[in-house]
Amino acid sequence: MLKVAILGGSGYTGLELLRILSTHSGAEVVEFSSRQYNGRPVSEIFPSVAGFYKDLVFKNPTDLAETDADVVFCCLPHGASMDIVPHFIKRKKRIIDLSADYRLRDSDVYEEWYNEHKTKNLLADAVYGLPELHREEIKDALIVANPGCYPTSAILGLAPLMKGSFVDTDSVIIDAKSGISGAGREASLASSFCENFGAFKAYNVGLHRHTPEIEQELGLLAGKKLVVTFTSHLLPVSRGILSTVYASLEGTRTTKELIEVYRDFYKDEPFVRIMDEGSYPNISNVRCSNFCDIGIWVDERRNRVIVISAIDNLIKGASGQAVQNMNIIYSIDETEGLRTPPIQY
Amino acid sequence: MLKVAILGGSGYTGLELLRILSTHSGAEVVEFSSRQYNGRPVSEIFPSVAGFYKDLVFKNPTDLAETDADVVFCCLPHGASMDIVPHFIKRKKRIIDLSADYRLRDSDVYEEWYNEHKTKNLLADAVYGLPELHREEIKDALIVANPGCYPTSAILGLAPLMKGSFVDTDSVIIDAKSGISGAGREASLASSFCENFGAFKAYNVGLHRHTPEIEQELGLLAGKKLVVTFTSHLLPVSRGILSTVYASLEGTRTTKELIEVYRDFYKDEPFVRIMDEGSYPNISNVRCSNFCDIGIWVDERRNRVIVISAIDNLIKGASGQAVQNMNIIYSIDETEGLRTPPIQY
Amino acid sequence: MLKVAILGGSGYTGLELLRILSTHSGAEVVEFSSRQYNGRPVSEIFPSVAGFYKDLVFKNPTDLAETDADVVFCCLPHGASMDIVPHFIKRKKRIIDLSADYRLRDSDVYEEWYNEHKTKNLLADAVYGLPELHREEIKDALIVANPGCYPTSAILGLAPLMKGSFVDTDSVIIDAKSGISGAGREASLASSFCENFGAFKAYNVGLHRHTPEIEQELGLLAGKKLVVTFTSHLLPVSRGILSTVYASLEGTRTTKELIEVYRDFYKDEPFVRIMDEGSYPNISNVRCSNFCDIGIWVDERRNRVIVISAIDNLIKGASGQAVQNMNIIYSIDETEGLRTPPIQY
Amino acid sequence: MLKVAILGGSGYTGLELLRILSTHSGAEVVEFSSRQYNGRPVSEIFPSVAGFYKDLVFKNPTDLAETDADVVFCCLPHGASMDIVPHFIKRKKRIIDLSADYRLRDSDVYEEWYNEHKTKNLLADAVYGLPELHREEIKDALIVANPGCYPTSAILGLAPLMKGSFVDTDSVIIDAKSGISGAGREASLASSFCENFGAFKAYNVGLHRHTPEIEQELGLLAGKKLVVTFTSHLLPVSRGILSTVYASLEGTRTTKELIEVYRDFYKDEPFVRIMDEGSYPNISNVRCSNFCDIGIWVDERRNRVIVISAIDNLIKGASGQAVQNMNIIYSIDETEGLRTPPIQY
Repeated sequence: MLKVAILGGSGYTGLELLRILSTHSGAEVVEFSSRQYNGRPVSEIFPSVAGFYKDLVFKNPTDLAETDADVVFCCLPHGASMDIVPHFIKRKKRIIDLSADYRLRDSDVYEEWYNEHKTKNLLADAVYGLPELHREEIKDALIVANPGCYPTSAILGLAPLMKGSFVDTDSVIIDAKSGISGAGREASLASSFCENFGAFKAYNVGLHRHTPEIEQELGLLAGKKLVVTFTSHLLPVSRGILSTVYASLEGTRTTKELIEVYRDFYKDEPFVRIMDEGSYPNISNVRCSNFCDIGIWVDERRNRVIVISAIDNLIKGASGQAVQNMNIIYSIDETEGLRTPPIQY
Repeated sequence: MLKVAILGGSGYTGLELLRILSTHSGAEVVEFSSRQYNGRPVSEIFPSVAGFYKDLVFKNPTDLAETDADVVFCCLPHGASMDIVPHFIKRKKRIIDLSADYRLRDSDVYEEWYNEHKTKNLLADAVYGLPELHREEIKDALIVANPGCYPTSAILGLAPLMKGSFVDTDSVIIDAKSGISGAGREASLASSFCENFGAFKAYNVGLHRHTPEIEQELGLLAGKKLVVTFTSHLLPVSRGILSTVYASLEGTRTTKELIEVYRDFYKDEPFVRIMDEGSYPNISNVRCSNFCDIGIWVDERRNRVIVISAIDNLIKGASGQAVQNMNIIYSIDETEGLRTPPIQY
Repeated sequence: MLKVAILGGSGYTGLELLRILSTHSGAEVVEFSSRQYNGRPVSEIFPSVAGFYKDLVFKNPTDLAETDADVVFCCLPHGASMDIVPHFIKRKKRIIDLSADYRLRDSDVYEEWYNEHKTKNLLADAVYGLPELHREEIKDALIVANPGCYPTSAILGLAPLMKGSFVDTDSVIIDAKSGISGAGREASLASSFCENFGAFKAYNVGLHRHTPEIEQELGLLAGKKLVVTFTSHLLPVSRGILSTVYASLEGTRTTKELIEVYRDFYKDEPFVRIMDEGSYPNISNVRCSNFCDIGIWVDERRNRVIVISAIDNLIKGASGQAVQNMNIIYSIDETEGLRTPPIQY
Repeated sequence: MLKVAILGGSGYTGLELLRILSTHSGAEVVEFSSRQYNGRPVSEIFPSVAGFYKDLVFKNPTDLAETDADVVFCCLPHGASMDIVPHFIKRKKRIIDLSADYRLRDSDVYEEWYNEHKTKNLLADAVYGLPELHREEIKDALIVANPGCYPTSAILGLAPLMKGSFVDTDSVIIDAKSGISGAGREASLASSFCENFGAFKAYNVGLHRHTPEIEQELGLLAGKKLVVTFTSHLLPVSRGILSTVYASLEGTRTTKELIEVYRDFYKDEPFVRIMDEGSYPNISNVRCSNFCDIGIWVDERRNRVIVISAIDNLIKGASGQAVQNMNIIYSIDETEGLRTPPIQY
């Protein structure tokens, strides 16, 4: 039985890890930390899991220093993660980091979009944890940098086009919409109920920090540097991301042909579902699951392809993908803990 | 491996049975019917389960006449159920009926609230399928009459008080609130998005057909006939029922004492969670689970007890309880297929 | 043209006053304060009113000390209100106070449910601002204590029964449900989107501070002290309160008879709508309006009456009623500024 | 006092016309029709307006044949509208048609996207009723073809760019998101609460009938034929449209410069609000109002402009714009009936 420690578990991703791991046959949560909730039973903060983790109590993060866990899920915000990861690397723990700290290979890019990077030396030990693109490298990674939620949906939606050079890489526009849980669980006016009920807006227009992550991975696939336009919007739902992606085709392709390209590209993937022609994803069809649903349509009037991809931002966009990465590292069936069907209603 | 057939699977309860049974180690769905969707793959109607039931196609109900399933879940509306149940009883199938047709022991009461009862002879073979009250009888029942959603929450909330004669049985008021899925999946103006978004109302005031079911079971517990006031309201959420129950105490009791009464009454129940003093249920804490959460408070100023109980109307109020009943009949661990924690967010 | 100052305008009630008064032919907002937003244009915080109050800037509350406004709407929280009201009373301003500070005639009761009352001497100058009960006194009141949102719905729902001695005053149960805006606009985890989306719970069970206010006014109507059971719930909508009220009838009455009692009681009221037999209120039918809709049903099986009343907590439950009170004080048509129909969808 | 008849008033646009016109000082609704609700009082179907239109009863459409109304608002679906409009034209009524039947100048285009056009001869008498572009022509139009909701938001968002030739007309992508009321008030599974709660999807991808309308008007502004990519999505809110528009700049422009272009273009428009740099629209800030809020940002990395525009689909996208058009025709202040601030919360 793998022993799991979760750092910074007071947010949505911490709770989702608890939920997923409660049904995992090969791993158990042995430690769970949150400075804010130190000393309180987990079920007091998350009453939904009452009865599941009877003896689990939030600890202070520092109390986990000598943990005997095998793997550490780090759910701290960016900046805080790089303060603590080196400690666990020294102690030979495998790290699955849900922050942005180890996602960007180029520390200059990190510093341009975030702050100073304090552990650049560890970047070489980190792998971008998108299994569909980096499964082999993940197996041996000391640090798995679990992808951002928007990037997961955008990159999975674009990878086959980029890899196959089907589109003009200068033409990529990603219009993405996310549920409110993407903003985290801290109290704020911006994520209050009344600000968001019946509301819809774009935010961080042109400035969203997930942009460089998308560009990095798409650039690797395309074999060249590229720049995308990425716009994020806030949906009045708790969870789910839908990205509508536009790109100009190089040469002529039909919808049918591109669907085949996608089906072939993802043919061995347990969590990517390519939809039939004329069907498109809905965030409710992937809710609470690790699936990414993708629909494709060619606008022949403009020779442009539209790809629509949907994920649950907390699962495939965070905790589910993190467990998938853990399964890969430890050669467990990749779907273990992740087989429950989506909650359509 | 138990073979399961599902009749009338085009609604929410049919989909929930598919979801739950996909993770059940001892049962598999072999047939699934819906007149309306006859011939169409299940995943076309319910895209969320794409990949789970690859060969399952909606059949015409009549095509199931000679099914080799062991157990038949009947998700037809009341009235339609009693037309088809006798057929399967003759063929020695065990029936778990989610309609109201076999819930009321007294056919006169049925006919007062519903329509003519066409198979009164079968009522003796039916057991009211609330495991917390009738577990032993369920084991041998030919027909398990799966309880209504409101009654499940109300009866579980009141059973310890009734059994122990703690309250004036004339004083019971049940103020219940249900999500929209309780109205079924048929298209109607009343269940449209815009009619319900930001809305809240009482409906069927004084006329709700779940009333006699509640009175029957509470009367059995109290050992006498009784009449309750039951008011149903429509919550703008897809799933969940919360019942706030009021009753006048006979004698004086503290909140603490009554919490102990409840904990003792439900001490062996895997799906009832009695909350600590000062904590109360939220439908989000039982969402998509088979739990019933119960909170208790004594209004000492008025010597009245307030009990609040929450369930997911589609799970403990329908398909989850149906699977729990199947597990009981076949001596499977009662929690099999039902161990996933609630979806708090 | 009446000059209006609004103190503590950073919350929902401040914005609603701006909205309502922008269409009022006889009053204009001349000053608007908020410590938090001091110096910022109103439309920066509330972009919806961009173009309406072009020169209105949030001031520091202390900058309003010498305001030349005629009437001061005080939207500060309880406790803060009584600190500042005496200042304006000395300057001969008419005060409409939306806090709880002057609602309870008996300062002992106030101190039991809230904190120390620092200006008990002013209680005699205050009138409970429910026009349907106290219109004549409001005309001359120095301080109008604008009622709480729950009390407005509960008292209007019960007044005809209490006044006419139709029910056992010991039997009153108020099961009330409110939208999230009732919790105020401050950032908090409890009022975050994800905590409330798809959620529903009771809160402050037995402890809600609106209880004494309801008991005071019902007691005045009944001509004796009384105690009610009041339970508050949180609806996942931004605005609206629906109260379902239960009481045991003294003597026998039909639904029709009681509807007539209500129609007679409210026959001159512009904002109370008594529904036809078999029809019940919906918060969406009063949304953004000053109406209170009331439906009545007699449960003859139990000789109990059920009254359902709905208001918009921010309008009839706060800012709309405040403007109605202002209109009464200044002999303006009581519906001025309040004639827009509800937003049903 | 203008006399108004409303044809096909059983939907959302009919109710919104009632709401708006109830506060209009120069017009009154004298007749209101719906085949489905013939003979029933308006307030029975729309309880929110109880007390406002006491004697208004739904009539059969044919009963309006000899109406003495001055102006007829036609809220029938496309196809049905052209059956009845000629009748009223003959009787010298001014028509404001909310269907698509008279929006497209070229009947071939109409027939390509809709069905056969049966009154092509009347197309010359129709004016596309977007006041910001066609105010002068509207004044004398026999038929005002009230624009579609998506086109209103898209065209207003793009007009200054098109008129000024600031962008490559081949590059225009419109990613639009609409509330559920856009689908109409008829009962359907697709617009049910549970299908849409917590859901989000694209629909009619590449096939939406509002596309030719957008292309017609943008082509007129640009002075040449053009083709756009338009994708519609369904937001889980009752009302509101937000369009995110992308286009490649011809030459270099800063955000500031383009904001000035927009402010200049719309400088005399009462209902268009251009936001400051760094601020973007939210559908909640225009809710229930006739405003169109527009935010602009130049993505300098890609020399692409992003324009975000928000309207209430039922007001500026339908009934509000219809009243604005009526005001223009009859030389009434264009904002009459439309001055209530948006409902931000």
